[in-house]
Amino acid sequence: MELLEQRIKKDGRVFPGNILKVDNFLNHRIDVNLLEKMGEEFYRLFKDCGVNKILTIEASGIAIACMTALKFNVPFVFAKKNQTKNISADVYTSKVTSYTHGRVYDVMVSKEYLNPGDRVLIIDDFLANGKALEGLIDIVIQAGADVVGAGIAIEKCFQPGGKELREKGIRIESLAMIKSLDNNTVVFC
Amino acid sequence: MELLEQRIKKDGRVFPGNILKVDNFLNHRIDVNLLEKMGEEFYRLFKDCGVNKILTIEASGIAIACMTALKFNVPFVFAKKNQTKNISADVYTSKVTSYTHGRVYDVMVSKEYLNPGDRVLIIDDFLANGKALEGLIDIVIQAGADVVGAGIAIEKCFQPGGKELREKGIRIESLAMIKSLDNNTVVFC
Repeated sequence: MELLEQRIKKDGRVFPGNILKVDNFLNHRIDVNLLEKMGEEFYRLFKDCGVNKILTIEASGIAIACMTALKFNVPFVFAKKNQTKNISADVYTSKVTSYTHGRVYDVMVSKEYLNPGDRVLIIDDFLANGKALEGLIDIVIQAGADVVGAGIAIEKCFQPGGKELREKGIRIESLAMIKSLDNNTVVFC
Repeated sequence: MELLEQRIKKDGRVFPGNILKVDNFLNHRIDVNLLEKMGEEFYRLFKDCGVNKILTIEASGIAIACMTALKFNVPFVFAKKNQTKNISADVYTSKVTSYTHGRVYDVMVSKEYLNPGDRVLIIDDFLANGKALEGLIDIVIQAGADVVGAGIAIEKCFQPGGKELREKGIRIESLAMIKSLDNNTVVFC
């Protein structure tokens, strides 16, 4: 998606350790007009797949999922990372290793909100090692629902998540695919 | 807002300790059509205030802020609750006591994304003791920006946050105002 690639070139910042910061428009300060275009693009890509539910994970996935759900006219569910007083104990859970936070956490979705027969599009901001996405797929499978595919804003193609999950038959559509972040420079595929 | 009150009556669930669960449509499974109407209502209420930025807090505020920002055609910023590798050290912070999570945490916004002269509308899902909202107001003040007001989805009027903050001169507009949750029944003001 040309618009997103241009924005990454303009406002993305590369830090040591292959970290791409897109805080300026995607996951701290949010450009809702850009997200609306991203939602339209995910709709164009998956509109014939019978999607009736969108699943994402807090916190950075929520805004993208929100704009995508609006285009599909379906509800979205966001998986939670920590058990709170206000979430039912009756949840699907999966363990995820976070590269960003350097820890393992439980991802949770209330059993009420994913059902057999649901056709689920998973949305997230980044795909790198694929651990968050694997956790979400695991939860959809536990619910007896179908994973239609995954819509990702930015894929780091030099990390293995995308390749591994595509080899397992998951359809993944990434709006910006990054080949390299070497020398503080973003190179797209 | 009649539509939100009706939805709370239909799908809200009351638990001991004055807990109102609205997981079904507001903060786990999200009804984007309802949120779009809420965003329109916040726009109607604050459209003449020169709002150029919306501020919320992860995670439950993000979707509401997203739909509101879309109506205002401005960016939104979400405050983060935990320091991660990917957030700049150069942040405004404020300490918040969370009733829901039973702990104290730091709320953070990168200094880049709030500036003197910004006219900020704060958006959140619940207002009860007002601690999260106080923390966000503190951050806006630290930035030298102006708080135009706060748009809240659900205010628990039997808890003191709303009254205390209004007495300090903060304009608060809550779309559903709850007088009581006694006997597992929602009574609106």
